[in-house]
Amino acid sequence: MDLLLATRNPNKTREFRELLGQAFGVIDLSSFPEIATPEEAGRTSEENAILKAIAASKQLPSLVIADDSGLEVDALGGAPGVFSARYAGENAGDVSNVDKLLRELRKQNIATEKRSARFRCVIALAQNGKLLGVFEGFVEGKIVDPPRGSAGFGYDPIFEPKGFDQTFAEITPESKNKISHRGQAIAALRKALREIEN
Amino acid sequence: MDLLLATRNPNKTREFRELLGQAFGVIDLSSFPEIATPEEAGRTSEENAILKAIAASKQLPSLVIADDSGLEVDALGGAPGVFSARYAGENAGDVSNVDKLLRELRKQNIATEKRSARFRCVIALAQNGKLLGVFEGFVEGKIVDPPRGSAGFGYDPIFEPKGFDQTFAEITPESKNKISHRGQAIAALRKALREIEN
Repeated sequence: MDLLLATRNPNKTREFRELLGQAFGVIDLSSFPEIATPEEAGRTSEENAILKAIAASKQLPSLVIADDSGLEVDALGGAPGVFSARYAGENAGDVSNVDKLLRELRKQNIATEKRSARFRCVIALAQNGKLLGVFEGFVEGKIVDPPRGSAGFGYDPIFEPKGFDQTFAEITPESKNKISHRGQAIAALRKALREIEN
Repeated sequence: MDLLLATRNPNKTREFRELLGQAFGVIDLSSFPEIATPEEAGRTSEENAILKAIAASKQLPSLVIADDSGLEVDALGGAPGVFSARYAGENAGDVSNVDKLLRELRKQNIATEKRSARFRCVIALAQNGKLLGVFEGFVEGKIVDPPRGSAGFGYDPIFEPKGFDQTFAEITPESKNKISHRGQAIAALRKALREIEN
């Protein structure tokens, strides 16, 4: 079964391919430059994921999945949350976003043991403009400073999942996928896709 | 003509392909997991580039190019220089390296106008264990804080080339390649390769 992933972020596409395996062919919007993507105007990851999935599924006939993910840092009142990808501005990259987050925490002098945080991932599944399901995953951890590791993307070098002494950027993609927010949301999605297939 | 680029950094390979164009096929060491790469023990970029090119050219028959690049920040006595890729440690990624550099400059309270820096790139060309040439390029600029932009890699989000008010991560790859240290070194390399071809 082919799935259209409503993203132009190659890192997300890579993780979906790793996690969905051979059973599903994943294509993303990089093959469809003409497809418009909506402004991520929702107040929650769920709203944004649904917005993106519905919009793409009105323009293309395939089953569409859209992922909205965010990092919630408790000491920052849940920020950056839905603004994770553009925390330091509209064209911010990973370096700028991580830098802004660490500066906020340093400014407030938050002790390491109080830097609890979680990654949340919401995936919406849609077809022909209709929502078929919403799947969620999260992983608890804490923010480390300075950043460590070179794998992964986004905030991975500063996120240490509970029970680990390595960041998401220091463990292998296989280990990350097993415990990550995205890994869990995709596990739920995969179950739903199997039911659709049968 | 096919060239072997002695690197496993996909970002470097991409820039070499963009800059060498159709005339040269560039393959890198990701296709040769069995090829050993030497420790970058040189004191200069030139020594390291030569080390890498000679080592690979003893193991594979093709023309080999190796690139060693670094960022030299005057207020830090030329650091990170040859340690640019591993400034924050052996497995450091871009996020950690940039974070360490900005922390050093913040600690010393260096004013923006005194944050002069340059990117330097040295390319060595070798075949069958023999050095055929060394090509160098550099670009002057300054370090900006906070980082800006999402293009490029490495220290690009904090490097603003002279005469620009955007960082290397805010301009297009085409614009970066035109003025960058790597672009200039590759221009010199290309000339030499044409002479070898004729």
